[in-house]
Amino acid sequence: MDGKWICEFGAGMDAPPVEADAALLGAKGDSLVQMSGLGLPIPPGFIIAAGASLAYCDTGKHSPGLEEQVGKAWERLESNLRGLGRPSLVSVRCGSGDLIPGLMDSVLNLGINDENVENLARMSDSQDFAFDAYRRFVEMYGDAVLGVDRRHFEEILESYKARHDLELDTDLRARDWSALVKEYQKMIHKRTGMDFPRTREEQLWGAISAAMRSCGNARARGYCRAQGVDCSTAVIIQAMVFGNVGEDSATGFFSSRDVVSGERRLRGQFLRDSQGGDIAENARSPLPLCADGDVSLGRSLEETMPQAFAGLQNAAEKLERHYRDMVEVAFTIERGEIWLLESLRGDRSTRAAVKIAVDMVEEGLSTRSEAVLKIDPSSLQQLLHPMLDADAEYEVLAHGLAASPGAVSGAIVFSADDAEAFERQGYKVIFVRRETSPEDIRGMQSSAGIVTTRGGITSHAAVIARGMGRPCVCGARALRIDEKGEALYVGSRKLERGATITIDGSSGEVILGKVARIQPEFSGELKRLMNWADGYRRMGVRANADTLTDARLALEFGAEGIGLCRTEHMFLDEERILAVWQMILTRSAQARQEVLEKLLPMQREDLTGLFELMAGLPVTVRLLDPPLHEFLPRRDEEQKRMADASGVNLDNVRRRIAELRESNPMLGHRGCRLGITYPEIYEMQARAIFEAAAQASKKTGSPVEMEIMIPLVALKRELEVLKERINGVAEEVRAETGLSLQYKVGAMIELPRAALRASEIAGLADFFSFGTNDLTQTVFGISRDDALGFLGAYSREGILEQDPFVSIDQKGVGELIRLAVERGREERSDIILGICGEHGGDPASIEFCESLGLEYVSCSPYRAPIARLAAAQAKLRAADN
Amino acid sequence: MDGKWICEFGAGMDAPPVEADAALLGAKGDSLVQMSGLGLPIPPGFIIAAGASLAYCDTGKHSPGLEEQVGKAWERLESNLRGLGRPSLVSVRCGSGDLIPGLMDSVLNLGINDENVENLARMSDSQDFAFDAYRRFVEMYGDAVLGVDRRHFEEILESYKARHDLELDTDLRARDWSALVKEYQKMIHKRTGMDFPRTREEQLWGAISAAMRSCGNARARGYCRAQGVDCSTAVIIQAMVFGNVGEDSATGFFSSRDVVSGERRLRGQFLRDSQGGDIAENARSPLPLCADGDVSLGRSLEETMPQAFAGLQNAAEKLERHYRDMVEVAFTIERGEIWLLESLRGDRSTRAAVKIAVDMVEEGLSTRSEAVLKIDPSSLQQLLHPMLDADAEYEVLAHGLAASPGAVSGAIVFSADDAEAFERQGYKVIFVRRETSPEDIRGMQSSAGIVTTRGGITSHAAVIARGMGRPCVCGARALRIDEKGEALYVGSRKLERGATITIDGSSGEVILGKVARIQPEFSGELKRLMNWADGYRRMGVRANADTLTDARLALEFGAEGIGLCRTEHMFLDEERILAVWQMILTRSAQARQEVLEKLLPMQREDLTGLFELMAGLPVTVRLLDPPLHEFLPRRDEEQKRMADASGVNLDNVRRRIAELRESNPMLGHRGCRLGITYPEIYEMQARAIFEAAAQASKKTGSPVEMEIMIPLVALKRELEVLKERINGVAEEVRAETGLSLQYKVGAMIELPRAALRASEIAGLADFFSFGTNDLTQTVFGISRDDALGFLGAYSREGILEQDPFVSIDQKGVGELIRLAVERGREERSDIILGICGEHGGDPASIEFCESLGLEYVSCSPYRAPIARLAAAQAKLRAADN
Repeated sequence: MDGKWICEFGAGMDAPPVEADAALLGAKGDSLVQMSGLGLPIPPGFIIAAGASLAYCDTGKHSPGLEEQVGKAWERLESNLRGLGRPSLVSVRCGSGDLIPGLMDSVLNLGINDENVENLARMSDSQDFAFDAYRRFVEMYGDAVLGVDRRHFEEILESYKARHDLELDTDLRARDWSALVKEYQKMIHKRTGMDFPRTREEQLWGAISAAMRSCGNARARGYCRAQGVDCSTAVIIQAMVFGNVGEDSATGFFSSRDVVSGERRLRGQFLRDSQGGDIAENARSPLPLCADGDVSLGRSLEETMPQAFAGLQNAAEKLERHYRDMVEVAFTIERGEIWLLESLRGDRSTRAAVKIAVDMVEEGLSTRSEAVLKIDPSSLQQLLHPMLDADAEYEVLAHGLAASPGAVSGAIVFSADDAEAFERQGYKVIFVRRETSPEDIRGMQSSAGIVTTRGGITSHAAVIARGMGRPCVCGARALRIDEKGEALYVGSRKLERGATITIDGSSGEVILGKVARIQPEFSGELKRLMNWADGYRRMGVRANADTLTDARLALEFGAEGIGLCRTEHMFLDEERILAVWQMILTRSAQARQEVLEKLLPMQREDLTGLFELMAGLPVTVRLLDPPLHEFLPRRDEEQKRMADASGVNLDNVRRRIAELRESNPMLGHRGCRLGITYPEIYEMQARAIFEAAAQASKKTGSPVEMEIMIPLVALKRELEVLKERINGVAEEVRAETGLSLQYKVGAMIELPRAALRASEIAGLADFFSFGTNDLTQTVFGISRDDALGFLGAYSREGILEQDPFVSIDQKGVGELIRLAVERGREERSDIILGICGEHGGDPASIEFCESLGLEYVSCSPYRAPIARLAAAQAKLRAADN
Repeated sequence: MDGKWICEFGAGMDAPPVEADAALLGAKGDSLVQMSGLGLPIPPGFIIAAGASLAYCDTGKHSPGLEEQVGKAWERLESNLRGLGRPSLVSVRCGSGDLIPGLMDSVLNLGINDENVENLARMSDSQDFAFDAYRRFVEMYGDAVLGVDRRHFEEILESYKARHDLELDTDLRARDWSALVKEYQKMIHKRTGMDFPRTREEQLWGAISAAMRSCGNARARGYCRAQGVDCSTAVIIQAMVFGNVGEDSATGFFSSRDVVSGERRLRGQFLRDSQGGDIAENARSPLPLCADGDVSLGRSLEETMPQAFAGLQNAAEKLERHYRDMVEVAFTIERGEIWLLESLRGDRSTRAAVKIAVDMVEEGLSTRSEAVLKIDPSSLQQLLHPMLDADAEYEVLAHGLAASPGAVSGAIVFSADDAEAFERQGYKVIFVRRETSPEDIRGMQSSAGIVTTRGGITSHAAVIARGMGRPCVCGARALRIDEKGEALYVGSRKLERGATITIDGSSGEVILGKVARIQPEFSGELKRLMNWADGYRRMGVRANADTLTDARLALEFGAEGIGLCRTEHMFLDEERILAVWQMILTRSAQARQEVLEKLLPMQREDLTGLFELMAGLPVTVRLLDPPLHEFLPRRDEEQKRMADASGVNLDNVRRRIAELRESNPMLGHRGCRLGITYPEIYEMQARAIFEAAAQASKKTGSPVEMEIMIPLVALKRELEVLKERINGVAEEVRAETGLSLQYKVGAMIELPRAALRASEIAGLADFFSFGTNDLTQTVFGISRDDALGFLGAYSREGILEQDPFVSIDQKGVGELIRLAVERGREERSDIILGICGEHGGDPASIEFCESLGLEYVSCSPYRAPIARLAAAQAKLRAADN
């Protein structure tokens, strides 16, 4: 639209350019052009393209030619309206709609002044209407264009009503409105030093300039910078139609389907004798559009204005066919005649979105791939977890991070022991802690929900809770646990152990007392959609699952294998932790070997179950990863228990704990470094895996697809040494069982060095699994547990557009992954590449994985459906490009 | 030498190939060939090239053609010896000398048997000699070739002497030796089941095969793998000469110059009537080679055998001219005639090495660049720190890591307060702690040396100690500080506070009591050498210096600027730390601002001094880097002091400390993340820098070359935001002072993401400084403080060839640096690139920096001479390639 800023629409106007650019017209403007093209009844008008506001904000002057073009469009509009016998009043609105915050509010009835208000009265046959319209205009213009706060107008109105003993606005008549217009204009003069503009031209340019200028405010600019879009707005000038000229007139809106259930039925509200905005503000209750089968009430539009209703239904069908989607429409009825003012692809619940997408395929309105692309994968999590009842009222105690979705109520406890004890007594508990560590896992397992007062979206608590599918709110800083861990404080309010709270892990709210919930369902439509998605998907979807429960859930949610089975979680059981403590306390390899022999059958048993369940599907088992001190007790009584259980004196226990303490455990003695320095640990684990596989395959008759994963590899030689030892154990088990064990050994790529040296590592690895959590931590040098102190400020200041722990940082972390993929494949073309970090369940990250051609993504079982859908979308989009 | 394995040498033999490969001949073999080429008197012989041993170890068989080639060489050698009237006895030795451990010991006198021993007696005119030679041969052969332990021979000898009432070996005569030979051979038969070989051929091939086989032992192989060399050895067969045929015969060795002082004078020892090895074993004391001006003793070779001495001196001169270096020579004098057996470039003290290198240039024996290349840069540190007197005797309490060189004695203290108090009373103190943190810096500054019982070579204590030039031993795990921190235990021995110990930071020893020391000197020769080096050097050398003392030292040691001035160290002074505590306790930006105004003049004052001193040279000032909690006190009494000083109640102090605590501080809220979240801190620092620069330049008349460095950058936008704020402060100071401040702003590249995004960061940065410590930590995912638990095992197992915190890991970390250099330069060709991590003082890392074309390296002041020399060598070598 170089040099041409105007796009006209509606009957009697110039047709818009065939390919008018939606971005330049704004969503509202574009909808007007589209509807006009469909022959729907639209008040005529024109749009000033967004580019003009950009130029105006930069230079403070309107673009050359703009005034002339606006002038010509206006002339055409005015003569058009004159021909129709309509008043030449217009609305001026920003075209970017609600997206950008701080843009100018709409100005209606523009064009009225002292001279022509009487004409309007004549045309509308109502003095009251005409002067009310004038009053409304002065108020809106004063507020939106001249910057005089609404409150000043309200004060004048209230004082006028008090003086004249009038109660409701509807009690006011033409003379009252006329008097108020004068008082308003006087007040505006006093506050701004300016006379209220009289001419249509002054008024119009005042409003256009204000609309454009509103892009320059700090809020709007901050928002646009964060979104990475130009800060600009189209301006829409459109003929007024009036819903407030009697009982045969109305304003209203509708959606073409039910936004909650997705049912195919017009849903909406209308208000007789009203003008735009009145529905939200007015004291009168709006009425429903449809009778909903019960026509006895006789109040719906369907019954009372069946012709207008039919017109709207007809328009809805045309728009659905055009957009291949549900639409939301704003309309006005003026003396029985319908006018459409705007159409949007409206918001809807996820349940509705799924139903609508699937129904539209059935109705022949759209294709399966369109349906698959229509659903935001992340929104699915709403369907997979219980939600708070939207109608419930409640008191929010604190806001934290929405760390793991779902809502749950329960009694608060502050220790793992209490969690277990309460649970045994049949209570649902919410486990509240400053932050969690692996020794809290038993407590988390016994809890219905988890709250931490520190820690970020990828802290230990959050990661484990998501893995377990427990609702979790993290970093609820307004909460404080007292020193003794016996009560919770919010400000000065105290909640004792056992008090009931509700948490909503989808919103981050911590709520006082119990709140009603809505249970999720994996509906027939969702299953249908997921099946279609699976048909388009190229990448596999596996789940991160450590237990049989996890694995069953994974299968239920459509995972095609286990991409990460963390063996350490098997150690945390009450009975086993004692053996683990002994293993850690022991300083001799020999004694350690003896303790490990106690752990071997336990680990083998767990794995046997897992292998049997997953028969025929791949299972990636990661060897011990966390530093040993994470297993050790922190509290005195537990340390004492550890000493007693191990027959070691308490001082020695404490000394060993102090010895193992690390400054930066994340970068410490963990992962394959443990495997190298304590060979007997990994050897026990390898034996457990092989023996379990032997048992499981005997039972199921199909071989186990074992993938043994070495964590935290930085050096080729680490993998070499460990692989040799694992192969040695396999040889032994082969000799003992007589079975031919097939297995893969691979490396977790979660350190920059491993990515850089991918070529030589690939020479030894059957597979790579990208551990993007740790990779993000090391590439950024940010500990996810400590990031809360500054990541908030970073996102507020627009320094980080996106939390890199939620979505892969494609420019930094992503470059290393790409490099590792290239180098790995070059060395070994059949290497299996996957991702098992938290990002495996994030749609943007999944799209990135598709672009790299990874074989699979692995995520928490609860996110498997999200991953399936996102992977399908990624493939469809990739095929499109 | 494909298929040709033999290289002959010495008079009467075939001349060796012109370019015999030293690697295949071994160092010893090569020296024989070289000496033979110089016409020096060498017993004739031949060498079997190392490749033959490689083949033998692999296949267990000798290479085709080898036996024939050896046979022919032997024939030539035998007829040669026959012509000279010498016995055809030989020695068989491994040619790789002492380098590879576990190789076969030399076998002398090979060729004797019952039949020809009488011939030897005739030729040597001595039955005693002949049978003694036979006995020696059987013993050496039995031990080295047949694997019978020496102890068994000694037992037989002792029992024989006891039975015959003989005291000394010299009391034994031919019949005794003859009887012993028989007893020896019987014992060998009993132990090995083999008859002792009689023929020359059996003996020879037995010894050759044993020599080759000795490369196959585990120790040798382990060593070679670690060194990355082939495990092979040349075998030398050489005619015997005898130093044990009377008082006009002798064996001995000398170096062509004094290995301690470097003085040009033959230094060595000899022993009359002895055979090789006797000097080390014999009860008789060896005599000096030179009279050293005092001929009255009449015992030196110079006086007693002046002709032989002159021959050796002549040989020394020839060899020095040939090798252009000092040599060490082993010799034998047989009836007045000298024979050279081996020449090596001998070890020498660093002081000697420098003097010799410089002297040889003066003497016209070598060039300046050769002299510069001859000195191992790391060895210079011996000259720059006090050393323990090599003659002193002492008791070592514990071995730790040699963390910062130099030796010092002092009274032990366990707290910073005690360190200061003792120092004020005039004591030298050794500060002993489990590990150190920034609050210990005052204590470290008051101490003469530092010991930690934990922490690695790059732990806080080690880094700071090296920066301060304080001797430091880290990770002395045998030491234990008691709970109350009042005594030190070594096993059950207790050392109270105030007890004297000595530490040697060059060896890692912690020693009981006081030990005599030798003071360093920056000798005239060293200065000369450094000047030559500076002439060849391309890269600049800067120093990491935070204080005036450091900066003065830096200038003294030839640094050309400051590459890293850590501003936080200025905060740790007694008086300032209170203000720092207040700053941290405060939660409002306003109150923080007020406290910062107290710190401003202090920081400004320090910087003014630094800028004045460094007038005209660049000074890189790094803004606050460590997380705030590092400044906070850990001990109760200090926390109380903090509460009192800040007027805050102790509970609140503790709460704030707990709040700020981090799981992984290394990856936490530090570096520019502090600058972003607490804008007033960096703004105060920027103001201090600018105001200091204004004052300093007014005083010195030359502008200050300020470089403001932003630490821990991961995102372009961080640099953008902070640069804008710094520029804002500069504008203010410009306006206030009327001066035109010139300054640079740059980024510390110490995170993988910064390296990857170097291009966009370079768009905003005047310079990059690679912080290779943190970059190594993040690329490897290894915390240097926690690495002690496994890096030891890694280096023992050959998983890590080199500690990446000591020398840059060129394959991993190095690739990221190279990438950042390329991307940075591409975006901005005039960007200044330097390195300021610990690696800046490591020669191998400096060579890597030269290969990347960096502008400078920056290291601790004490390492500046090392860096200057290493940089010169790197440039010379680069020019060579």
